[in-house]
Amino acid sequence: MRTIKIFDTTLRDGEQSPGASMNVTEKLQLGKQLVRLGVDVIEAGFPIASPGDFDAVQQIATEVTGATIAGLARAKELDIKSAYDALKHAPQKRIHTFHSTSDIHLKYQFRVSREEALKRSVEMVKYARSLVDDVEFSPMDATRTDIGYLIEVVAAVIEAGASTVNIPDTVGYTIPVEFGEMIRKIKERIGDSAVISVHCHNDLGLAVANSVAAVLNGAGQVECTINGIGERAGNCSMEEIVMCIKTRKDIFNAQTNINTQEIIRTSRLVTRITGIQVQLNKAIVGANAFAHESGIHQDGLLKEKMTYEIITPSDIGLTRTELVMGKHSGRHAFKTRLKELGYELSDSETETAFDKFKRLADQKKEIFDEDLEALVSEEVSKIPETYSLVELKVESGTNLKPTAKLRIKINSREVETTANGDGPVDAVYKAIVDITKTSSSLLKFEVKSITGGTDALGEVMVTLEQDGKKVRGSGADTDILVAAAKAYINALNKLTPKK
Amino acid sequence: MRTIKIFDTTLRDGEQSPGASMNVTEKLQLGKQLVRLGVDVIEAGFPIASPGDFDAVQQIATEVTGATIAGLARAKELDIKSAYDALKHAPQKRIHTFHSTSDIHLKYQFRVSREEALKRSVEMVKYARSLVDDVEFSPMDATRTDIGYLIEVVAAVIEAGASTVNIPDTVGYTIPVEFGEMIRKIKERIGDSAVISVHCHNDLGLAVANSVAAVLNGAGQVECTINGIGERAGNCSMEEIVMCIKTRKDIFNAQTNINTQEIIRTSRLVTRITGIQVQLNKAIVGANAFAHESGIHQDGLLKEKMTYEIITPSDIGLTRTELVMGKHSGRHAFKTRLKELGYELSDSETETAFDKFKRLADQKKEIFDEDLEALVSEEVSKIPETYSLVELKVESGTNLKPTAKLRIKINSREVETTANGDGPVDAVYKAIVDITKTSSSLLKFEVKSITGGTDALGEVMVTLEQDGKKVRGSGADTDILVAAAKAYINALNKLTPKK
Repeated sequence: MRTIKIFDTTLRDGEQSPGASMNVTEKLQLGKQLVRLGVDVIEAGFPIASPGDFDAVQQIATEVTGATIAGLARAKELDIKSAYDALKHAPQKRIHTFHSTSDIHLKYQFRVSREEALKRSVEMVKYARSLVDDVEFSPMDATRTDIGYLIEVVAAVIEAGASTVNIPDTVGYTIPVEFGEMIRKIKERIGDSAVISVHCHNDLGLAVANSVAAVLNGAGQVECTINGIGERAGNCSMEEIVMCIKTRKDIFNAQTNINTQEIIRTSRLVTRITGIQVQLNKAIVGANAFAHESGIHQDGLLKEKMTYEIITPSDIGLTRTELVMGKHSGRHAFKTRLKELGYELSDSETETAFDKFKRLADQKKEIFDEDLEALVSEEVSKIPETYSLVELKVESGTNLKPTAKLRIKINSREVETTANGDGPVDAVYKAIVDITKTSSSLLKFEVKSITGGTDALGEVMVTLEQDGKKVRGSGADTDILVAAAKAYINALNKLTPKK
Repeated sequence: MRTIKIFDTTLRDGEQSPGASMNVTEKLQLGKQLVRLGVDVIEAGFPIASPGDFDAVQQIATEVTGATIAGLARAKELDIKSAYDALKHAPQKRIHTFHSTSDIHLKYQFRVSREEALKRSVEMVKYARSLVDDVEFSPMDATRTDIGYLIEVVAAVIEAGASTVNIPDTVGYTIPVEFGEMIRKIKERIGDSAVISVHCHNDLGLAVANSVAAVLNGAGQVECTINGIGERAGNCSMEEIVMCIKTRKDIFNAQTNINTQEIIRTSRLVTRITGIQVQLNKAIVGANAFAHESGIHQDGLLKEKMTYEIITPSDIGLTRTELVMGKHSGRHAFKTRLKELGYELSDSETETAFDKFKRLADQKKEIFDEDLEALVSEEVSKIPETYSLVELKVESGTNLKPTAKLRIKINSREVETTANGDGPVDAVYKAIVDITKTSSSLLKFEVKSITGGTDALGEVMVTLEQDGKKVRGSGADTDILVAAAKAYINALNKLTPKK
C-alpha cells in the first residue's frame, strides 16, 4: 500500500490568512503538535520575508524534531541562502523553491520569457542542491500553465536535482477531472524519478477534491493546512484529505502517517492560536460534524451506527468533554492533566498557571479541558508586558452612560482614568486608549465562550491595527468586560514591545 | 448550452442543522430572497414532520411565487397527502418522496426486502402523481446501494411518473470519480426520460466536488443550501457549485439561472436567521475569500487582477461597505435604502424600525447597511412578546461581585430584581431567570460585532433548551450587556408564546 506524505503548511500558507499571524512561541507549540499528529513535512515559514519569519524557521529547525522542516524561497540566490541559513540545524531539512510558469504570471507580473523562467528554475534548484539534499520545486500557477511547457519545466528541475515537484493550483481555478488529468500526464512523463506533490487552494470549494483526484492519478504528497486556513479561501484541509484517504481506503489503496486521534486537538490549537474559528458545519472538525438532527437519522443510528455514520468520532480524538477538575484539585493533578493535554510548561509557568487555575476554580464550579487549555495557552503565548491590568470597574445599562474606571500599570507605574463610551466595551477601550495614549484602530472584536453555561470562561479576541501592522490579542475571564480589557491590553503589548 | 437547475433545500435540510430552526416569518423572508436569487426549486420543508413545518410550507406555497415549491414526504400515503395539502395553493408545486435503497438501511433500519422497497416506491410515486404533475423521487443512501438495483429502482419510478430522480449521497461517503461513474451509468440507462438530480453531503469535504462530477456526467439538477448548512457537515454549498459552473464555463458548457449578484446578500440573510456563521476562509462568501495577504500576490494584483483573482468580488454582489446614513437621514432615505436592501416592510413596521434607527444614530456616528439589516431583521422576525426589557443596570469589574438590576414587563406587569453572577452576563441571566421563574439551559452564547469600531452595534445570539426544545434568540444594541439581555428575553419569548 502506498503512503501519501502529508506536507503541512499551516505555519507558512496558513499564516498568510489575514489576521492569523503567530508569534514564535505559538509557532513552536504548533510545530511540536504537528509532530505528534504525524505530518511528514512542516513548512515552517518563508525566511527571507522578514527577520521574524527567519527567526521562527530557525527556532523550529532547532527545536522541533521528528519531521522534515521546510523553508520557502523564491528562485533567487538570496532567498535560497536565507532559507538554508534558517534551516541548517534541522536534522531533516528541505528547501522549497518556486517560480511562476503560467503565461499570465510571466507576462504581466514577472515579465520574463518561458525560456528565462525555465533556465532560472533549473539554476536555482542546482544551487539549492549544493546546500541541502532535499529540494522541492513548485511551478507557481501550474494549473493555468501550458501543459507541454509545464512538463518540460518539471522534467528539467528533476534532472537538476529536485526530488519533489509540487503542482500548485495557486488561484484555486482547477476542477478534479482537469487536475487529475494534468497529474496523470506528469506522472506518465516522470515516472518514479521524483515525488509529485500538490498544493490546492479552495476558491471554488474544490481544494480537497482536487487533491483527491491528484492522489488517484499518482501524486505522492499533499500540501495542506489544519482547518484549511490560508490565503483567501484557504488551502486543502489536512483533516479532510486524511479522513478521505482513511475512510475510502477501498478506492485509494493508500494510507498516511497521520495519527488521526490527534486531529481534534490540533484543530483546536490552531483555532486558539490564529483566532480563526471553524464553522459549525465544517467537515470533520466542525461542532456539528457528528450531530444528527433528523428523526429518521436518529432512529437509524439507534438501530445500527453504520446506517448514518461513516466516521467514528473517537477516530479523530473527539471524546465527550469531561469534567476534569474543580477547586479541590491539587498541583499534581493539574500538572498531570496538562501533560495529557500535550503541554510541557516550565516550573515557573506551571506555578503561574496553577494560581490562575485556583482563581478560576473559585469563580467556576466545573473546569473543563477547554478551560485549562485557555489558561495555559495564555501562559505559553505570553509576551513581555508594557501594560498590565490592575483594576477595572464598569457601570452600564439601558438608561446610563456606560462608564469604565480603569487602573493599569505602564511598565511599573500605576495610573488610573475614567471614560464613557457607547457601550461598556467601548467605555473600557476608550479608557485604555486615553491612559496609554495609543492610537491603534480596532479591526475586529470577537467573543468566544469556551465552555457552556453562564458561568463560562469567556475568551475575547481583538485585532488592532497601527501604522499598517496588525496584531491579535486575547484575554479570558468569567467577566466578559475584564476579558475584553485583557485582550486589548494583550494586543497593545504586542504592538509596543517592552524595552 | 445546458441549464443546470438549482434546487435549494436551505429551508428543509438546512434547517436540520442543529440549532438552526427558523420561524415562519424568517422562512418567508428567506423564501422571497431565494426567488430574487433565481433558484428553480425551493424545498420548503417536510410537512408531516410537525404542525409548524406544515404551516411554514403552506405559507410559502401561498406567498412565495416565482419558483417551484417542493415538500418532502416519505414513501407513505399520509406523508404524501400532507405534502399535497401544504403545497396545493402553489402555482408550481412538487412532491419529493423518498425511500432507502441501500442494503444497510433496508436490513438494519427499515427491515424490508429490496423487492418491497421497489414496490412501495413505485406505488407512492403513482399516488403522488395522482395529486400533482411534478414528482421527484430519491433512493436514500444511493451511494451505498448496489448499482444494478439502484438503476432498476430509478427506471421503475420514472416509468411510474417521476420526472426527476435525485441521487443522494446521504452519509457523505462517495468521492467524485466514483459518483461521476454512478451518474454516468444512470444517465446511460434513462437518457432524457427524467432529470437526474444529486444531493451531496459534505462529511468528507467533497459535496461540491461530487456535484461537479455529477453535472459533468449528465445530472441536470443540483440540490444545495446557502452557506452549505445542513445535517452534520452540511450539504453542497449553493454559492460554490454556482460559481464553479460560471467560472469554468469552458469545461461545463452549462449555466444556471442564478443571479450571482444576490449571493452575498442571501448568504448574510441565512447567517442572520440561523445564527450559523460562515468561517473566514469559506469559499466565495467567507470574509477572507477575496483577501490577498502575501506580498507576491499583492504585487501581481496591482499589475493585473487576473494574475491572482479568478472571480471579481462584485460578481457575487460584494461591494465595499458604504456609509449609508447618519442621524440626519430622514424617513424617506431610510425607506428607500431598505427597499434597495430587499426589505418590504409594512407602514407600522417601518415606523418602529425608523424609531430604532434614530435611537441608534444617537449612539453611533456612522450607520452601515449591516446595521440597518440587523435593525430591520429584528422587526421582520419579531414574535409576540410575553417578556420585554424595561431597564437594566449592571456593575462589574475586577474586584466586584458582578451585579445586575433588571426591570422587565411580564405581559403588562412590571417587575424588578437584582442578582449577582460570575460575570456581568451571568448576573443579567440570573436576574432574568429569577424574575421569569423559567428553567431553560443556555447551550450557546455568541457575540457578533456587526460593523467595525468600538461604537459598533453588537449582536448577541443565544441558544436555550427547555424540555428538549431548542430555540435561538438574538438582540442588538451598542451595549453588549443590553444586547445579551434582549437575546435571552427574545429566546424566552419563543419558548413561551404569548397567550
